[in-house]
Amino acid sequence: MIENAPIKIYSPMLPNAPIAEAEDFARFAHMLADAADAITLPMFRKPVAIDNKLEHSGDFDPVTLADQNAEKAIRAIIEEHFPQHSILGEEFGHKKTDSPYEWILDPIDGTRSFISGIPLWGTLIGLTFEGKAVMGLNSQPHIGERFWGYGRACLYQGPRETYGQLQSSNQTSLSQALAATTGPDFFAKGNETENFEIIKNKTRLMRFGGDCYFYCLLASGSLDLVIEAGLNPYDIAALVPIVEGAGGIITDWHGNPIRFDNNGKTTVLATANKILHEKALSELTF
Amino acid sequence: MIENAPIKIYSPMLPNAPIAEAEDFARFAHMLADAADAITLPMFRKPVAIDNKLEHSGDFDPVTLADQNAEKAIRAIIEEHFPQHSILGEEFGHKKTDSPYEWILDPIDGTRSFISGIPLWGTLIGLTFEGKAVMGLNSQPHIGERFWGYGRACLYQGPRETYGQLQSSNQTSLSQALAATTGPDFFAKGNETENFEIIKNKTRLMRFGGDCYFYCLLASGSLDLVIEAGLNPYDIAALVPIVEGAGGIITDWHGNPIRFDNNGKTTVLATANKILHEKALSELTF
Repeated sequence: MIENAPIKIYSPMLPNAPIAEAEDFARFAHMLADAADAITLPMFRKPVAIDNKLEHSGDFDPVTLADQNAEKAIRAIIEEHFPQHSILGEEFGHKKTDSPYEWILDPIDGTRSFISGIPLWGTLIGLTFEGKAVMGLNSQPHIGERFWGYGRACLYQGPRETYGQLQSSNQTSLSQALAATTGPDFFAKGNETENFEIIKNKTRLMRFGGDCYFYCLLASGSLDLVIEAGLNPYDIAALVPIVEGAGGIITDWHGNPIRFDNNGKTTVLATANKILHEKALSELTF
Repeated sequence: MIENAPIKIYSPMLPNAPIAEAEDFARFAHMLADAADAITLPMFRKPVAIDNKLEHSGDFDPVTLADQNAEKAIRAIIEEHFPQHSILGEEFGHKKTDSPYEWILDPIDGTRSFISGIPLWGTLIGLTFEGKAVMGLNSQPHIGERFWGYGRACLYQGPRETYGQLQSSNQTSLSQALAATTGPDFFAKGNETENFEIIKNKTRLMRFGGDCYFYCLLASGSLDLVIEAGLNPYDIAALVPIVEGAGGIITDWHGNPIRFDNNGKTTVLATANKILHEKALSELTF
């Protein structure tokens, strides 16, 4: 239920954001996800019009009606409650205001999974404050799971009334680490493939095909490492607070914080803990 | 609930099996899956002892306690109800009788998914009669889905009380087909990799990481083609009636029926329909 009254927001949890409380924003994000789920789920595994954004360039980047309608619904609710906030979405671009808050949205992360019937796609709802990701939620409606994080908390709600706080693993051995990435073909620029192969060969196994879901499995303590390249801000903004809230480390391949304030693509190295992160970073070559 | 009285079995649905009805066996398979789910699900995403079967050969083939205990439970129930039937299971080998019926079991197909927290693993319960796969069930307990097939029927039960009959797609264009395989590294012998690359390049997209689940998505009409190699009888026996029951075609790479009566590895080409199957087969080279 989305109430008409604006959500009460006040301070303590975000030291640099005196007018907001991340937990309230997380509750709000669940309402946004409810609205998105109601649009995406009935279209999953049903024949839908699949557009092809990059048809003319030969690349494959399908976008469904579900994707567009879900983003419209999320944007409408944000604009009703927080008309002053900036919004960046995969489908409908950038609404830039002078607010320090920006919502970063990917209504269907994993469109390839979506059109193939694979339930690992998710709806990503992130919030940044002055460019730093402070709250993020991933909804996986077919499986009936939600993962969300803010500050030092990462929470889970799943099928069969499961609910709990997530904690990333204490795996510090790179050779024992369970690793994952969306697919081997997503490493394209410079020596990205070379670096991916290094991590693939140094870890215990490399899983493919998970998109946003893999970062949540890292937060859950199931996976130990996720390596990716070529990600847009909306692919990753919501996942940073989920990984960090569970105790994980997430940076680009140079160990720098991931930036969301431009439209550039980023590399990502997410690990279950700091020791594993340092070991993985030290293997990369540039 | 598993009742003590043996399940009544009689004929019409299996022309070559005058003493059995496939629908009764499917009902029995659901009971077997219930028993397996009760063992596997509490161990999913929990730290469990992970053994490494092929530790000394350097390969990675994890087997969990869940895997072994689920097969023990399934075998015990089969032996109670059908003591005369043969049983072939991944974990505990072959019980060979002179019955024309053989149960072929993989308690956790997709152990790599299981240990990584990815919910696409399944419990496979297949039944052959004189070497032909006549009934198969795949249970995906975390997602809450079951797919089962026999004769000309393939059925689905999923989350949110969804239930229905499945039908594979009518996609006949290879270049538009959505394709899938467990992973690019599973093609090893002879020119398997070459043939995999041909199909990957001729189809619209190739998804990785789904194991048994991909065959069920083919039955659902979501995927159009699955190509694999190096599969054991227990990896595929339960999936043949699911694919065929939904209208799909499943053979080895030479277009021959898949055999389960030996321990050899098999190639698999499954497609949504006969036209697509012929097109894909004609691309393969030997």
